[in-house]
Amino acid sequence: MDEIKTAILGASGYTGAELLRLLVGHPAFRVTALTADRKAGQSMASVFPHLAPLALPDLVAIDQVDFGAIDAVFCCLPHGTTQEVIAGLPESVKICDLSADFRLADIESYAEWYGHPHRAPALQSSAVYGLTELARPAVRGARLVANPGCYPTASQLPLIPLVRAGLIEADDIIIDALSGVSGAGRAAKEANLYTEVAEGVHPYGLGGHRHLPEIEQGLSAAAGRKVQVSFTPHLMPMNRGMLATIHVRPTAGATPADLRAALAEAYRDEPFVRALGEGGVPATRHVRGSNLCLIGVFPDRAPGRAILVSAIDNLVKGASGQALQNMNLMFGLEETLGLTLSPLFP
Amino acid sequence: MDEIKTAILGASGYTGAELLRLLVGHPAFRVTALTADRKAGQSMASVFPHLAPLALPDLVAIDQVDFGAIDAVFCCLPHGTTQEVIAGLPESVKICDLSADFRLADIESYAEWYGHPHRAPALQSSAVYGLTELARPAVRGARLVANPGCYPTASQLPLIPLVRAGLIEADDIIIDALSGVSGAGRAAKEANLYTEVAEGVHPYGLGGHRHLPEIEQGLSAAAGRKVQVSFTPHLMPMNRGMLATIHVRPTAGATPADLRAALAEAYRDEPFVRALGEGGVPATRHVRGSNLCLIGVFPDRAPGRAILVSAIDNLVKGASGQALQNMNLMFGLEETLGLTLSPLFP
Amino acid sequence: MDEIKTAILGASGYTGAELLRLLVGHPAFRVTALTADRKAGQSMASVFPHLAPLALPDLVAIDQVDFGAIDAVFCCLPHGTTQEVIAGLPESVKICDLSADFRLADIESYAEWYGHPHRAPALQSSAVYGLTELARPAVRGARLVANPGCYPTASQLPLIPLVRAGLIEADDIIIDALSGVSGAGRAAKEANLYTEVAEGVHPYGLGGHRHLPEIEQGLSAAAGRKVQVSFTPHLMPMNRGMLATIHVRPTAGATPADLRAALAEAYRDEPFVRALGEGGVPATRHVRGSNLCLIGVFPDRAPGRAILVSAIDNLVKGASGQALQNMNLMFGLEETLGLTLSPLFP
Amino acid sequence: MDEIKTAILGASGYTGAELLRLLVGHPAFRVTALTADRKAGQSMASVFPHLAPLALPDLVAIDQVDFGAIDAVFCCLPHGTTQEVIAGLPESVKICDLSADFRLADIESYAEWYGHPHRAPALQSSAVYGLTELARPAVRGARLVANPGCYPTASQLPLIPLVRAGLIEADDIIIDALSGVSGAGRAAKEANLYTEVAEGVHPYGLGGHRHLPEIEQGLSAAAGRKVQVSFTPHLMPMNRGMLATIHVRPTAGATPADLRAALAEAYRDEPFVRALGEGGVPATRHVRGSNLCLIGVFPDRAPGRAILVSAIDNLVKGASGQALQNMNLMFGLEETLGLTLSPLFP
Repeated sequence: MDEIKTAILGASGYTGAELLRLLVGHPAFRVTALTADRKAGQSMASVFPHLAPLALPDLVAIDQVDFGAIDAVFCCLPHGTTQEVIAGLPESVKICDLSADFRLADIESYAEWYGHPHRAPALQSSAVYGLTELARPAVRGARLVANPGCYPTASQLPLIPLVRAGLIEADDIIIDALSGVSGAGRAAKEANLYTEVAEGVHPYGLGGHRHLPEIEQGLSAAAGRKVQVSFTPHLMPMNRGMLATIHVRPTAGATPADLRAALAEAYRDEPFVRALGEGGVPATRHVRGSNLCLIGVFPDRAPGRAILVSAIDNLVKGASGQALQNMNLMFGLEETLGLTLSPLFP
Repeated sequence: MDEIKTAILGASGYTGAELLRLLVGHPAFRVTALTADRKAGQSMASVFPHLAPLALPDLVAIDQVDFGAIDAVFCCLPHGTTQEVIAGLPESVKICDLSADFRLADIESYAEWYGHPHRAPALQSSAVYGLTELARPAVRGARLVANPGCYPTASQLPLIPLVRAGLIEADDIIIDALSGVSGAGRAAKEANLYTEVAEGVHPYGLGGHRHLPEIEQGLSAAAGRKVQVSFTPHLMPMNRGMLATIHVRPTAGATPADLRAALAEAYRDEPFVRALGEGGVPATRHVRGSNLCLIGVFPDRAPGRAILVSAIDNLVKGASGQALQNMNLMFGLEETLGLTLSPLFP
Repeated sequence: MDEIKTAILGASGYTGAELLRLLVGHPAFRVTALTADRKAGQSMASVFPHLAPLALPDLVAIDQVDFGAIDAVFCCLPHGTTQEVIAGLPESVKICDLSADFRLADIESYAEWYGHPHRAPALQSSAVYGLTELARPAVRGARLVANPGCYPTASQLPLIPLVRAGLIEADDIIIDALSGVSGAGRAAKEANLYTEVAEGVHPYGLGGHRHLPEIEQGLSAAAGRKVQVSFTPHLMPMNRGMLATIHVRPTAGATPADLRAALAEAYRDEPFVRALGEGGVPATRHVRGSNLCLIGVFPDRAPGRAILVSAIDNLVKGASGQALQNMNLMFGLEETLGLTLSPLFP
Repeated sequence: MDEIKTAILGASGYTGAELLRLLVGHPAFRVTALTADRKAGQSMASVFPHLAPLALPDLVAIDQVDFGAIDAVFCCLPHGTTQEVIAGLPESVKICDLSADFRLADIESYAEWYGHPHRAPALQSSAVYGLTELARPAVRGARLVANPGCYPTASQLPLIPLVRAGLIEADDIIIDALSGVSGAGRAAKEANLYTEVAEGVHPYGLGGHRHLPEIEQGLSAAAGRKVQVSFTPHLMPMNRGMLATIHVRPTAGATPADLRAALAEAYRDEPFVRALGEGGVPATRHVRGSNLCLIGVFPDRAPGRAILVSAIDNLVKGASGQALQNMNLMFGLEETLGLTLSPLFP
């Protein structure tokens, strides 16, 4: 296999480091450029000592990269800075963007939630939203994939097949989700200090988290009409992992068993998404470090309700793992390459 | 003040130890008997080294206690073993029972959820359910108080005033709750090992947790009709703390601000329950080690919905703290005695 | 008792918050001023929501405080900024300084370790080093107490009585110490993020930690000659707690039992320092939230050696608790006032 | 490559599960039998849900395994039960034993530390102690490898080259070591509950830990005379990881830089052991989930001393990873097969 020359933009954050962990031993992608504007000139070993055993290029500024010699770009830049960078890349590179910058097809919705006009509207129209299992053909043909957010991945994988099948009411969906701290990134903020997070939990983003329009976009498309959901994220004292507990109302006649069967069918041949059998309870520790998504379906004592539970590793299926899954497809490779790691437990 | 001779039955568990922490320096209760059947003969210092600085009686078997010389009993025995023990106590002692054995007024509901007939039905009819702020007069006059469970405390304190006031629909309440591991007690179980809990989260009791009928009992009484709720507990990697995120549907015309105002009014003069102002987010770390309950009210983007959030320390307001609060009242003491500890943060 | 008007300078950090937790219900000290230069104008409830239930003055800048109306100052300012502030306070206030600024009696040693000349050398000569149990008479008469560091407290309490008694070789002392993250303060630094600390441990300060000269100062005084020790601190994934494992060489003829007996005798009547009996193992969780120091002595399989282990809560006996202990003495109060809290376990 | 039929005995513990994680995708070993006496009949997915995606045989009792059809045995049985089991295996199988049962060459030392006579003394004499980097030729030719303990691995890798080279005094070695909880196994014990471990640290085994004779055996062989060391293990609130802080006394004329150079030379071509450059600080989070051992060397302020620090993942290089490394060698395979995973951080 010809090696694919690969750049990671914004490689000094957790999603960049996670990509490098997954790319070790990948037979096709070879990392030839790593960027981090403020840390340009440093080695990855100094920024991430756990990666010191790998032979990696030093960090450079983006404008030092010769993108003519690059085939694939994983873009891990902060939200809001990504659109212009990607717009400036040559047509010859394929891009998977892990930021939110190309996730919302409606650029007005983008402007509303992110507080500034979209800076690459033409590119937006060609971007493919890369929730892989539900968008595989489009991903295969894409030049630019917008990699889904962690909460949207954990929420949409269980919900979309059920909304599409008309098995649940699209207008009464309540998502309570729990995230490990790595989802907040590596920026030095008081709120993310060990002492502020350990031994406690709290909800946040109660006024409207930016992952909400992304979830509603997917569910609205599945329902064929505009859908609004209730979504409450919580910050948990753990490094990695994300759990979504989702309350739904099955449509007339549908039972929890029907929902379970529909998800089992939808993901029957999927290597990474597993609909568990009756009584199977997803736990984040059972997916840690892996690209898996576990889904369980439960009856609810409250009449007319059912409960969906999904678990992912926010840095893998919720970020870098799904990005690699998408990039494998974009280059016509086996989708699971680099992603067959078992979970790390305990 | 005459000292009140006090026994703790089942003192080798976490709620027993927590009572002892709170009773240090209490001006009225003096601990004169501690029981633990399997550890009878041991010192508390050997069972709980952190209590070694206290001068405490050694552990004895229950039948070694002269209850004629005891005024107050905190009963921390396991569910199912408590009814017979309490039935055998002399009339002269007042009892606060931390188990579930006297919480359900309907003894058939008890039998259904606990798998055996109630063993002290006559006593049950005289037991007072001690959710202190909402049952103060009855607690004052009680001989036997059934101390509420942790989840029911965190759930009912925000919900009952709103149901009573008709501000929310009693038939559409969804509770997602998160608990620290101490709620599972000190029994040596694989599922509660450090390695099985740290760095992860999962829901449990999805088939129906035993705290559910207790919550429904309180809400049904508040609503004046039988109410069923959706309740999903989760196990969190933290020692202490409990957060309930509760989804409600305000009745026609009621706004989140109305709910917030009603809770502020309901708890205006309460020393331990605080309804936070607009935007105030309860976090378990802000109540750790204290008898506080924090409550927040939030609008929901989903039409017709609002979100309540409550936080307690499951071992304090969710168990031993509320038990002491009740016992203070039962003996005509200042309700806050022994309970004015500030939270421990970080 | 007349109330003592009290200011906390630098109240927006963890030691300031911890002082407020301990001062709740203290019968003598009343907090009348709280300062935090960058957060001046904010309420303590906004800076530390867990303190919201307390009635506290808002944060002000230091120069807004009328120190003429203040009797007692707890100074929690950063190292290096404290000398000038304290030098400017009126003679009428008594001061306990929690920074390192007055801990080293030798101002040249200060300059060497802190990188700038001492800014209040005259004051330095009157400062009393407040390792309470070993300096009680001097503390009682002091106007300015330099409160010991956390590592020096955990190290010197077990070592000094043994060095004084000539029971161990002062020239062969090795200290490996483990600290919770709160010792690093509340400043937003990448190294102290949850994700950088959880699930791991590492040593730091290997080139020479600033607590080293403080430890050597105390041991040199005890030995009557200049002593150098080996000291290696480690950062642990826990909020609070400090453990020192100390390797010593008993002098000819001395046994571990002799060391244990000497420590038991030295601390026999102490309310906060407990020399454990044979086999007693100090654990940080048994002192969490309390002003206790636990000490154990163990024989070593290696010939000629013994092992001392001490445990404290770095924020209490290692900082704010010892400060209050000292201030109680400085005002002629009962030493244990405000400090009789039991440990919080689990 | 012909596949090697592989059995894991005692597969229901953490080291068994870890072997399965590492063997995923290994090109040579195929797991054909898994045993667990008390859980015989269960699927691995029920015992370890995180392994559910793997196609694995169900657990059986040992006597149900046809060892005639097995080429390789990883033995993860408890100490004391292993000698008889291994003695009963056919000559045709090669064995890597992760228990302590064959680690001590001196069977009288075994009897002293384990409390019963050795049950397979003949086998003992043929067993090779598999500290891979220091025993590679012997491992290659072995039928039975005794896989080193976690503490002995972390201690001997930095120490043995220095003792062999005469660069440090073999008679003055002090090891303070910190272990994650998984080292204690999966047995349900009160001491290992989340609530008993989280937010705290303590030393244990102070009367003599069973890994001590194993460490002394290796150092004695390196020194050419009987050596005794000081060794104090501590239990840390983390799932995985082990750090050893080791205090040594360089021999006359040797400097910390000499020690560092000697270790760099000793491990220059090693894929898994990395001697860090000056100032490089090993941290357990930088090896989590990998087979790496990081070693740092530091000068000590105390005259005549130096400090070595090593970090491993106790379940990988300290157990299952090193076992696989050894087994690769025993079958003439590339030593790194299955072991090139990068650390999982954060």
